[in-house]
Amino acid sequence: MNDSVKLSLAEAEDLARAALEASGAVNGAARATARALVAAEADGQAGHGLSRVASYALHARTGKVDGRASPRVARTGLASLRVDACHGFAYPAIDVAFAGLVPLAREAGIAIAVLHRSHHFGQAGAHAERLADHGLIGIVLGNSPKAMAFWGGRKPMLGTNPLAFAAPLPGTQPPLVIDLALSVAARGKIVAAQKAGKSIPANWAVDADGNPTTDPTAALAGTLSPIGGAKGGALALMIEILAAGLSGSSFGWEASSFFDDRGGPPDMGQVFIALEPDKLSGGAFLPRMQVLLDAIAAEPGVRLPGMRRLAARELAAREGLSVPRALHQEILALLPKA
Amino acid sequence: MNDSVKLSLAEAEDLARAALEASGAVNGAARATARALVAAEADGQAGHGLSRVASYALHARTGKVDGRASPRVARTGLASLRVDACHGFAYPAIDVAFAGLVPLAREAGIAIAVLHRSHHFGQAGAHAERLADHGLIGIVLGNSPKAMAFWGGRKPMLGTNPLAFAAPLPGTQPPLVIDLALSVAARGKIVAAQKAGKSIPANWAVDADGNPTTDPTAALAGTLSPIGGAKGGALALMIEILAAGLSGSSFGWEASSFFDDRGGPPDMGQVFIALEPDKLSGGAFLPRMQVLLDAIAAEPGVRLPGMRRLAARELAAREGLSVPRALHQEILALLPKA
Repeated sequence: MNDSVKLSLAEAEDLARAALEASGAVNGAARATARALVAAEADGQAGHGLSRVASYALHARTGKVDGRASPRVARTGLASLRVDACHGFAYPAIDVAFAGLVPLAREAGIAIAVLHRSHHFGQAGAHAERLADHGLIGIVLGNSPKAMAFWGGRKPMLGTNPLAFAAPLPGTQPPLVIDLALSVAARGKIVAAQKAGKSIPANWAVDADGNPTTDPTAALAGTLSPIGGAKGGALALMIEILAAGLSGSSFGWEASSFFDDRGGPPDMGQVFIALEPDKLSGGAFLPRMQVLLDAIAAEPGVRLPGMRRLAARELAAREGLSVPRALHQEILALLPKA
Repeated sequence: MNDSVKLSLAEAEDLARAALEASGAVNGAARATARALVAAEADGQAGHGLSRVASYALHARTGKVDGRASPRVARTGLASLRVDACHGFAYPAIDVAFAGLVPLAREAGIAIAVLHRSHHFGQAGAHAERLADHGLIGIVLGNSPKAMAFWGGRKPMLGTNPLAFAAPLPGTQPPLVIDLALSVAARGKIVAAQKAGKSIPANWAVDADGNPTTDPTAALAGTLSPIGGAKGGALALMIEILAAGLSGSSFGWEASSFFDDRGGPPDMGQVFIALEPDKLSGGAFLPRMQVLLDAIAAEPGVRLPGMRRLAARELAAREGLSVPRALHQEILALLPKA
């Protein structure tokens, strides 16, 4: 028996949307959310893809996310928007934010949208890329529930705190996208090692006493290590201040988990900065990017960030998604009984 | 014989200013530059301090920096400034940029100043801190001459590319400042190890073949390693795109060295983003920062970034600077003969 199910992108989107609607999400929110999850799945980012449908649906059913929320936008300055996601899904709130942010950045040279009372926002890079598809440079930050210690500390406090960046490239090339979290490794990789009975590299995490460990169980009882030691710890703190402090949202240690139904809404904060490169550079930006692309192409072994993601996306568009059968069943079980 | 000379901050500033003026810098530029170098020295950042006077003076004498430049500001959007440093010193151009940037950020919620045809800008964190002294959040990026490879490559291409962040804190506390370069270690530390005949940690650099090395000579013939491997490499690329691409300045591999008189002006790019936190957060920012400070204070072993710098600054204000005698002589030798 085949352990995966082939779905076209449209089929996967319909399925995810139906599951979210069956859990109480209104059509618009379910549609925006399903689209983002399927796009992440297609990009090979399974951790932000269809695996989230069940926990999102659980959140919608238990009120940890409000599937009926209508995000509200307020202009707080000539170039700034404050967006209240009203404890709804992040993706429809980001749609509303970008409808205002894109024209504002074009006019102002730079503009910012700050989201509060938000939820898991998935692939940070996909949001940055959307801004770059409009010819803008996108910088995207979000905090996430506690996973890393303050530098020097032992308790999980900060999120792994994604940072994404996207820039348009000359001609018809897709944007350059950088998308990373500030932990050396994702928590999911440690969970996978634990399930497989394998050890993990010593630089991924420390145990509850703050000592490096290769034991996934000890790691999960401790904290994830930031990239680059104190420097990555400082960058994670910076993102926490921008995403949670600047939005007035929950810090990592205050936020409820994305994975269960305990606690109230996670109340995450997210920041989207858009820059208009032609204006800011006096027209020099795209020619400069061509010089950069040529320098990268001239050196063996060097590739632009994001190439693996693009290759996965093309394959998925051509051949559809291979969804693990157990995951497919999990989503089907959320649909209304016929 | 004592190998260091005690100077008050005012004496050190007068000395540095006189040396720069003797090398052809006009009074305003010399004053702004001397002030920044002495502030870095006081902060314990000797690499951006008085050790730079001789190379700055050399640049002014040979035309690699124009000591008589008048920086020009153009408003490119509702919230954006483009500043042409005209191949002069960076610090006076930053003064001019901030005179426009601060009121613009207050009005717009966010604003940006992009500098091109700039020079070494020293402690990135000091510029961010100045914005925070005005109640703004500061994000500061700059590129620098080639030192690191593209991720996967072997040739030095990217700068170590400083990133700084500063945020105001409640009450009378000085701002929180994060200031880091994206290399694991500064090149100067490797040079110091070479001089001392010592080995270096294997994660600081790779040799010309791309292999980790503990030999400082092999490291200096290779490239500095970014923090966090591919992630730090991507962050360094992001800063290169923002600082050089967005400003239309030289990339790291195109820029001339800060340390000798070869090549034309280094033509660096620098980006300053200022955010008005009260406006953007609906008044929530400072109360949120107090929650963060309380959480940090509650955990043994955790300190705010930048505390060592502040302690050095207080000591220098109280007791003056201890300047190595050889460095003092080097600067004295730049003064006009009586």
